[in-house]
Amino acid sequence: VEKIVLIGAGNVGYHLGRRLVERGIELRQVFSRTIEHARKLSRQTGVAFTTKLQDIDDGGSLYILAVPDAVIGEVARVLCKKKWSDTLFVHTSGATPSGVLKPYFSHYGVFYPLQTFSASREIDFSKVPICVDAPHPEDKDRLYALGAQLSEQVYRIDDRQRSVLHVAAVFVNNFTNALFEVGHDILQKEDLSFDLLRPLILETAEKVQKHSPGQMQTGPAIRGDQNTIDRHLAYLEMFPDYRRLYQTLTRHINPEIRID
Amino acid sequence: VEKIVLIGAGNVGYHLGRRLVERGIELRQVFSRTIEHARKLSRQTGVAFTTKLQDIDDGGSLYILAVPDAVIGEVARVLCKKKWSDTLFVHTSGATPSGVLKPYFSHYGVFYPLQTFSASREIDFSKVPICVDAPHPEDKDRLYALGAQLSEQVYRIDDRQRSVLHVAAVFVNNFTNALFEVGHDILQKEDLSFDLLRPLILETAEKVQKHSPGQMQTGPAIRGDQNTIDRHLAYLEMFPDYRRLYQTLTRHINPEIRID
Repeated sequence: VEKIVLIGAGNVGYHLGRRLVERGIELRQVFSRTIEHARKLSRQTGVAFTTKLQDIDDGGSLYILAVPDAVIGEVARVLCKKKWSDTLFVHTSGATPSGVLKPYFSHYGVFYPLQTFSASREIDFSKVPICVDAPHPEDKDRLYALGAQLSEQVYRIDDRQRSVLHVAAVFVNNFTNALFEVGHDILQKEDLSFDLLRPLILETAEKVQKHSPGQMQTGPAIRGDQNTIDRHLAYLEMFPDYRRLYQTLTRHINPEIRID
Repeated sequence: VEKIVLIGAGNVGYHLGRRLVERGIELRQVFSRTIEHARKLSRQTGVAFTTKLQDIDDGGSLYILAVPDAVIGEVARVLCKKKWSDTLFVHTSGATPSGVLKPYFSHYGVFYPLQTFSASREIDFSKVPICVDAPHPEDKDRLYALGAQLSEQVYRIDDRQRSVLHVAAVFVNNFTNALFEVGHDILQKEDLSFDLLRPLILETAEKVQKHSPGQMQTGPAIRGDQNTIDRHLAYLEMFPDYRRLYQTLTRHINPEIRID
């Protein structure tokens, strides 16, 4: 049975910490440099907190570093000054190789929940895919077992696969959201409510929950509807940046469309 | 009280026809050139169908042309050979000006449900925004009243606004789905399940149901995380088309990122 210490109480740490406690897993302590974050998570879970790395509880069996990518190594360097035997250290980053922890610990790995978390939104953690990895098979099994306590979807994913997942996640999450913002901005300039697009956005996402996106593609580009595209491009002349995006994405969907 | 004749039983006609009947509105007849479509909608609603335009029931008060954009004018030309007095004719297209019906009828307009429909998916029609327009105010009021019977969201939207909405819909629906397909394809090439991305896709859409997308933007581009972006671009060298998309969208989000 794991005794967990959670380093970091940002968006990932906040949701992960609450889920651990919700599932009755022993969470011994929460660390955050930001006292408001530490206090908030502590209040919601009843778990002790600290804001000082040197005060980290050394009685844990598993330390989860849910900190920004750029400081994983730095936190590891501070922690490794204590004497750890079989203690397992993992980070939660999609973009960082597990090897970043190798110089500091003999047992290390990755525990990556593939989801976009925000403090202001509840999430159904049982549906969050959890990607686990560790060089020692027994460590990987421990992480898999923990993942399975938190979520219905756990995957053994190596560094290379995780980096590919992270690229794909940028396309379907960050870039997609940027396109939502384009829609939002165009409507705002015409004094139209974004509520007009919200149901369409949700349905677009729901459609690919059962089907593959290739089967679901619709619209003027895939139809080869040059007339509509010409009208859209004419309208977009007042938004050169959006027009370029439109051209690039339209040509991506259908290379035969004329976009000039 | 409207007596409706529905011309077209494709994705829009299918869902609209079923919703009309579900709401107890008089649907007198369904037309489709495709007998399977006509028969399916007829079977589900108990409404008579025809596959011949010359057999269209002339006792309707409102004719809804839910046909492909390219044939709206052609269908109108055939229909206008009958004698109509105050009968109202509308199309359901987001991309077609209402004026396409003007040469044929004295009462015409638009009844545009802003959603992506597919025969294989049920939809909550009460959440579908309906955009109505007509040159005669009393016709517009009739269409608004009908829309309010079908949906909680009805808007008076003129031709220009509707064309802007259509451009925006292409960004948030067609282009977004194309990005989902990129994610799907990258994962497939690595033998990873698209199930890994599905919860992320859904959450990305859910996040903007209450918030505006600009507040929700995350990821390496907005963070200015050049290291991660460099690694992504290196990985994407094997997918030149996806790499171009990545560059274009990353620069769109953050013009200060180096992408070469």
